[in-house]
Amino acid sequence: MNEHIVKSYEDELNTLTAECTRMGGLTEAQIADALAAVVKRNHDLAAAVVGRDDRLDESEREIERRAIRLIALRQPMASDLRRTVAAMKIANNLERCGDLAKNIAKRSLVIIESDPMTPLTRSIERMGKLVLTRLTTVLDAYTRSDLERALAVWSQDDEVDEHYNSLFRELLTYMMGDPRTITASAHMLFVAKNLERIGDHATNIAEIVHYEITGEDMISPARPKTDSLKA
Amino acid sequence: MNEHIVKSYEDELNTLTAECTRMGGLTEAQIADALAAVVKRNHDLAAAVVGRDDRLDESEREIERRAIRLIALRQPMASDLRRTVAAMKIANNLERCGDLAKNIAKRSLVIIESDPMTPLTRSIERMGKLVLTRLTTVLDAYTRSDLERALAVWSQDDEVDEHYNSLFRELLTYMMGDPRTITASAHMLFVAKNLERIGDHATNIAEIVHYEITGEDMISPARPKTDSLKA
Repeated sequence: MNEHIVKSYEDELNTLTAECTRMGGLTEAQIADALAAVVKRNHDLAAAVVGRDDRLDESEREIERRAIRLIALRQPMASDLRRTVAAMKIANNLERCGDLAKNIAKRSLVIIESDPMTPLTRSIERMGKLVLTRLTTVLDAYTRSDLERALAVWSQDDEVDEHYNSLFRELLTYMMGDPRTITASAHMLFVAKNLERIGDHATNIAEIVHYEITGEDMISPARPKTDSLKA
Repeated sequence: MNEHIVKSYEDELNTLTAECTRMGGLTEAQIADALAAVVKRNHDLAAAVVGRDDRLDESEREIERRAIRLIALRQPMASDLRRTVAAMKIANNLERCGDLAKNIAKRSLVIIESDPMTPLTRSIERMGKLVLTRLTTVLDAYTRSDLERALAVWSQDDEVDEHYNSLFRELLTYMMGDPRTITASAHMLFVAKNLERIGDHATNIAEIVHYEITGEDMISPARPKTDSLKA
């Protein structure tokens, strides 16, 4: 192979990783804004999140197209192949996080219309910040190929579940105490569930980074779990 | 290439598709049993679903391993590459359906402990059967490479959403009418949501089958949507 082709192959791989990192940044922004829409009861923020979601869908398609083209034309081996597959899988997880952020933004519009639920909103904010930190950390780990950092995210999977379980109980109590809050609380229940699922995607990404770096799967029975009702 | 290698390559591709079809069958059984656990209030069925979920996780890992090995060693082109990528993506969707079925089974255990919610359970049963039919049909389309059948599933995405929206309203009314039902109803809300998400995976699989057969993406804005709060 001449140097030109080698360079261009490296370029393609780097572009793929860079696209994925950029998509990660956009996803973080979507989640932060969706959370702020709920917490600050801000209609405009919610609308902005909904409007930007198409960009994430397009990013995922673009990364997938690039990855498949790269596999077909360049036939990457070993670690290059893992890097390519990892980019596709991470993009898929990010796209799903984006959908969840969009859904949170849409639900915030219903929640805004009801009376403020101050203590619940604080719990949601705490949970959202925790989830966002996990995602940011694992995306850092991806960008820097930092196995230790990825494993740290993976092993702290429990924390989000604990927040979710306590919020679930808090919300049911709230509903029972005042049936007029049931509609808004039901939407808040799904906001909490969506945050928990974003946390799961952060864990998935940690597993993908582990696979990319080591070439080995993490077998899920080892994965820490406290919430028996997760999906 | 000699005939032996050609045959063995074909064999590998066929095995991949067959594994995926088999995983589809197991997923259908998991969903049917999880639904029956809710409808018939059957503890044993729920436990069986939870116990079998590991097999789906293992199937997905196996299909992914085979697909990546096939890409790396055989370097499939064009339609063979699409077939390989499609198997990986379908396995991923089926694994997620399996998680949702397991979650329904776990929630059925909480629901069984409360008083029967007969009219709601009938609505859940109807929605569950619709979702299951969609999944069965799209898996048939995959097995037979039947584009028309896949497109039929894809274009009827709306029906499940309508069921879900009506169930969501029905459940909130139920909760407001009798706050003692709130805990069981909240779990039922997630059962309905999980069924809706299984329906979305059926739609995703229809898109993957379309891509496998035609080589073209279906762009999501064309996708029918009625529920503005989906995720």
